[in-house]
Amino acid sequence: MLLGRVVGTLVASRKEERLEGLKLLVVRQMDVDASDTSSYVVAVDAVGAGVDEVVLYCTGSSARQTAQTHERPCDAVVMAIVDQWEIGGEEVWSKSARPAKPRPVAKAKNRLKA
Amino acid sequence: MLLGRVVGTLVASRKEERLEGLKLLVVRQMDVDASDTSSYVVAVDAVGAGVDEVVLYCTGSSARQTAQTHERPCDAVVMAIVDQWEIGGEEVWSKSARPAKPRPVAKAKNRLKA
Amino acid sequence: MLLGRVVGTLVASRKEERLEGLKLLVVRQMDVDASDTSSYVVAVDAVGAGVDEVVLYCTGSSARQTAQTHERPCDAVVMAIVDQWEIGGEEVWSKSARPAKPRPVAKAKNRLKA
Amino acid sequence: MLLGRVVGTLVASRKEERLEGLKLLVVRQMDVDASDTSSYVVAVDAVGAGVDEVVLYCTGSSARQTAQTHERPCDAVVMAIVDQWEIGGEEVWSKSARPAKPRPVAKAKNRLKA
Amino acid sequence: MLLGRVVGTLVASRKEERLEGLKLLVVRQMDVDASDTSSYVVAVDAVGAGVDEVVLYCTGSSARQTAQTHERPCDAVVMAIVDQWEIGGEEVWSKSARPAKPRPVAKAKNRLKA
Repeated sequence: MLLGRVVGTLVASRKEERLEGLKLLVVRQMDVDASDTSSYVVAVDAVGAGVDEVVLYCTGSSARQTAQTHERPCDAVVMAIVDQWEIGGEEVWSKSARPAKPRPVAKAKNRLKA
Repeated sequence: MLLGRVVGTLVASRKEERLEGLKLLVVRQMDVDASDTSSYVVAVDAVGAGVDEVVLYCTGSSARQTAQTHERPCDAVVMAIVDQWEIGGEEVWSKSARPAKPRPVAKAKNRLKA
Repeated sequence: MLLGRVVGTLVASRKEERLEGLKLLVVRQMDVDASDTSSYVVAVDAVGAGVDEVVLYCTGSSARQTAQTHERPCDAVVMAIVDQWEIGGEEVWSKSARPAKPRPVAKAKNRLKA
Repeated sequence: MLLGRVVGTLVASRKEERLEGLKLLVVRQMDVDASDTSSYVVAVDAVGAGVDEVVLYCTGSSARQTAQTHERPCDAVVMAIVDQWEIGGEEVWSKSARPAKPRPVAKAKNRLKA
Repeated sequence: MLLGRVVGTLVASRKEERLEGLKLLVVRQMDVDASDTSSYVVAVDAVGAGVDEVVLYCTGSSARQTAQTHERPCDAVVMAIVDQWEIGGEEVWSKSARPAKPRPVAKAKNRLKA
C-alpha cells in the first residue's frame, strides 16, 4: 500500500455499468516524510474519505477486495484513513496534529454524480 | 485508475481469437493538471470513447472486469469518459468547457477492423 | 497493451515443464511515434509473429488469457500483429508501408527448441 | 520479492473492515548491497517483524497468499525475516553481524490499534 | 519475462509457512545486450538454477504458476535457464560460449536453510 493525500474528486457520468455508484477520488501519492510526490492515482473511495485527508490506497487486483469494488473494473482503492505513522520511534505525521484544512464553502464543489 | 486522452486508434487484423471484435484505442496518459505525459497505453474501449476525449483507464487484471474484456488477453481498458475533475475545490478540467476538437473529415480515418 | 517490435528469439531448453512448447520472442517496446524505447520484454508468441514485425503485447495476469499461455508461468504475451495506427487522424505506422526487413538467410538462425 | 528494512509503523483506525486486525509496517526498500533506496511501501506484517529488521516483502496479488492477508485489500506483505544473503560467494548482510539497533524505550511508540 | 543473472542466494529461517522449502535466489536484471542493469529481484528457484547462470524470470501472479510456487506468497520465480538469444539474426549471448564462472570452493557458501 502507499500513502496518499486526497486532493480532489472526479465526475464521470458515462462509464462501464459496473462502475455505477462508486465515488472517485484524485489522490496525490505521499512519501514517508509526509511530502507530496509527483505521482497520482484516481481511486475508488471505500471508507468515506474527504478532500485533504491522508489515506492508504491499494492497487492492482487487491483493489477489488473491498465490499464496494468486488468484481469491478477498479485498480486503485482508498481503504483506510491514516491516523498516524512514525519512523524509527519518531512521529512523522498525525491526523490530530495536522487537521485537514477546511476549504472555503463557496468554492467547495465536491459533489459527485453517482 | 489514470487519466488519459484518446489520441488515436489501432488496427490489428491478425490476433489471438479472444481479441476479436474489440476496439483498440491509443491513449496518452494525462497528469492531474490536464497536461499530457510521455506515457501511453493501447487500451480496449468499453464505453464508446472517441478521439480527443478525456477518459479514465484501468490496467492489470482489473482491465478484464468489464463485459467486453472478461477473460480476454487485455491489460488496459477505457471504462469511463470524464466529465470534470477538481483539485482542492477548483475545477481543473471540464468536458463542457473544453469540447473535443473536431478533426477534418478528409483526414479522419478512424475506421477499425473488427 | 503496449506496442513492440520483435527483435529476436530466445532458446531455453531447461525450464519449468509448463513452459514446454512455447516460442519465446525478444520484444523491444515502441513508443507511439513508432520509435524504439530502451525497454524490452521476453514474451510468449501467441500469433506466429516473426522477427521485425510490429506487435501488441500484454503483460501480467492478462498474458495468461490466451490458448497457449493459460495457467502457464508467463507474464508477457504477443497476441496481435499490428497493421496500422494513427494519431489525431494521421497515420503513424502502417505494415504495408513499412514491410519487415528481410534478413540475410545465412545469418537467420531463428530456430527455437520446443 | 524485494529486500526491505522495517522503518516504522502506521495506525489507521478508520478502514475497510477486511483490514481489521492487521499490523501495518512502513518498509524502506533496500538494494542488494544492503543500502536503503528512496522507495517505500506500507505492508501488512505476516511474520512478526519489528522495527529495524531486514525483511522480504511481496507485492501484488501474491501479497494475499498468506494466512493473514487472504482475500484482504492488501497489495504488500512482509512474509520473511532475512538471516543472511550473499552475492558471488561473499556475504553482503547477516542478521547476526548487524543486530537490530535497540530504540530508546521512552521514544518507542510502536503501539498499533487493531 | 525478463532476463536475469543469478548473483547470489538468500537465507530466511523465520518466514510465512507457505514459503517453507523454497530456494531463494538474488537475481540481477539483465538488458538484451547481456549487460547487467541496476535492478534486482529475489526470486524462488523453480528449475535448479545456480549462481552465475543466466535465467528467465517471471513476476506477479504468473510467478505462482509453477509446481513449487502454486498458492504461495511469491511474486517472482526463475522458471528457465537461458541457452542462447539472438537479436536481428546475430547471437547476443550463448551459454556454451560463456560458461558460468566457477567460484572458489572455500568462499562458496550457497547453502540455504529449507
